[in-house]
Amino acid sequence: MSRLIVIDWGTTQFRAWLVERESGAVLDTIPSGPGLRAMAGRDFPEHARAVLAPWRAENGEGTPPVLMAGMVGAPSGWRKAGQPPLPVGSADLAAGLVEATGLPGAWIVPGVHARGAGGHVDVMRGEEVQVLGALALLGRSDGRFCLPGTHSKWARAEGGRLTAFTTFMTGEVRAVLLGHSILGEPAAPDAPFDPAAFDQGVAQAEGPEGPLHHLFSSRGRFLYGELGAEGIASFLSGVLIGAELDGALAGETPAGPVILVGGAALRAPYTRAMEARGVTVEWVPADAATRAGVMAVANARDTAARPHGS
Amino acid sequence: MSRLIVIDWGTTQFRAWLVERESGAVLDTIPSGPGLRAMAGRDFPEHARAVLAPWRAENGEGTPPVLMAGMVGAPSGWRKAGQPPLPVGSADLAAGLVEATGLPGAWIVPGVHARGAGGHVDVMRGEEVQVLGALALLGRSDGRFCLPGTHSKWARAEGGRLTAFTTFMTGEVRAVLLGHSILGEPAAPDAPFDPAAFDQGVAQAEGPEGPLHHLFSSRGRFLYGELGAEGIASFLSGVLIGAELDGALAGETPAGPVILVGGAALRAPYTRAMEARGVTVEWVPADAATRAGVMAVANARDTAARPHGS
Repeated sequence: MSRLIVIDWGTTQFRAWLVERESGAVLDTIPSGPGLRAMAGRDFPEHARAVLAPWRAENGEGTPPVLMAGMVGAPSGWRKAGQPPLPVGSADLAAGLVEATGLPGAWIVPGVHARGAGGHVDVMRGEEVQVLGALALLGRSDGRFCLPGTHSKWARAEGGRLTAFTTFMTGEVRAVLLGHSILGEPAAPDAPFDPAAFDQGVAQAEGPEGPLHHLFSSRGRFLYGELGAEGIASFLSGVLIGAELDGALAGETPAGPVILVGGAALRAPYTRAMEARGVTVEWVPADAATRAGVMAVANARDTAARPHGS
Repeated sequence: MSRLIVIDWGTTQFRAWLVERESGAVLDTIPSGPGLRAMAGRDFPEHARAVLAPWRAENGEGTPPVLMAGMVGAPSGWRKAGQPPLPVGSADLAAGLVEATGLPGAWIVPGVHARGAGGHVDVMRGEEVQVLGALALLGRSDGRFCLPGTHSKWARAEGGRLTAFTTFMTGEVRAVLLGHSILGEPAAPDAPFDPAAFDQGVAQAEGPEGPLHHLFSSRGRFLYGELGAEGIASFLSGVLIGAELDGALAGETPAGPVILVGGAALRAPYTRAMEARGVTVEWVPADAATRAGVMAVANARDTAARPHGS
């Protein structure tokens, strides 16, 4: 029975799973650890060796390999991994694996870059394995994906490969507006999700003026007693997620459901906003997608390493 | 010869002019002082009395009246002034003047509120006098206006009154993204305006994905060497101003020039972006518009105070 250590190492979080290669079963989990921002000035190999020691020592047949996805391969991460152009499948990612310097048997999965309609570049690190993993979990080779977060990605897959994606900085804009703008000043910190305020934001986002106007509506509504301090964060989420959907779906003919690959916290608002726009949603948990995608890369690497014809 | 003290007191700046009522000539100027944010914990009447003392004392016939416009009439300002609904002309603003408590002969000009298509409220304090002042300076009673800034306003006037407006939080979004987001991290502080990077941003903003995507393009362009650190702030300005224009002009049939009422610093980028969208521009300096608008309010008050038939 062979094992694999899967790591999702992003800007704000670190997660690791010990998985059984044959079944994909999760044998053990490290639910959280320092993201890249918190690693500033710390030693990547030393940290990884320490936290992975229980998994790497206990295996008599040799320690299980480590595959890492996410911003860990950015220039500000452990070691820079490439970003091959689209289309990209698991074999392409396997071909681009780079060794994680200082930790034997550890590899970093590359990211991807895309060229938009005007020739400008868009970038991704981590979501590419989630798209491939979601396809594997669903037993499909095509799909339309939404991967919400700090920098939300909308993606397409065809023939088992990632063929297009677009980034929306929805989560980060929400955070900076709540933390540093006049809109956030009166907002109640840590207020629970307010479905009515969220729906008002989603509806507001439909107007042709665009989010620079719609966001400011939270100010007028608050000053005129039409939006309470507890509803501001949810209203802004509604405006931003609505604007993201409308931007991602602009000019598209409806083409089946959107596969939502995300954490549980973003499932409800994104599903709610898509339903308000008449879009059906299938949900795949982000962690499961990461594990399945990294396993697909590991399998592709093993296949490539085998002699032809074997 | 009668005199008037005109004050523009906003969130981040204070300016005052001593003007001659009959000609509008500026006799003296206080070019800068603390905005409302810097007034936190300070006494409004005391501060105004101190800085205006040279103008208020030297007039033997009685001290000139003081009319103040801007956020000084917000709940966080000196004293809350109303925000009458549209349409609003100088007589409506004169009717809503409130006394500035603690400084005899000083008055605060009210703001305005609007109701958008969906019934939601939008708010303004200060730009209403600029629109009326620009009309007076141009000798017109109708026009389409852009008043750029932290919270840019697009406005319409008909029959000498302000009839519609929409807010875009262009300047504040630019500031928080440069100061607090990943986009601003590599940006060169205080880089001069970069026309080529700005034009790229304006062109980028035309795509249907919306600003949440277009802003992120600065990240990819920077990482791939297509946008230098010195060009990031100008590129973001281009995306945001482009998005503002496209939102403001959405669904509009071209209807003559846009009257741009602003400071000198924003004249070049806004003119450049509007020309890229095929819109012609007439410029009116914001300070002159403020003085002319406040004078129109002062004249309307005097007219209202006169007995009928005189």
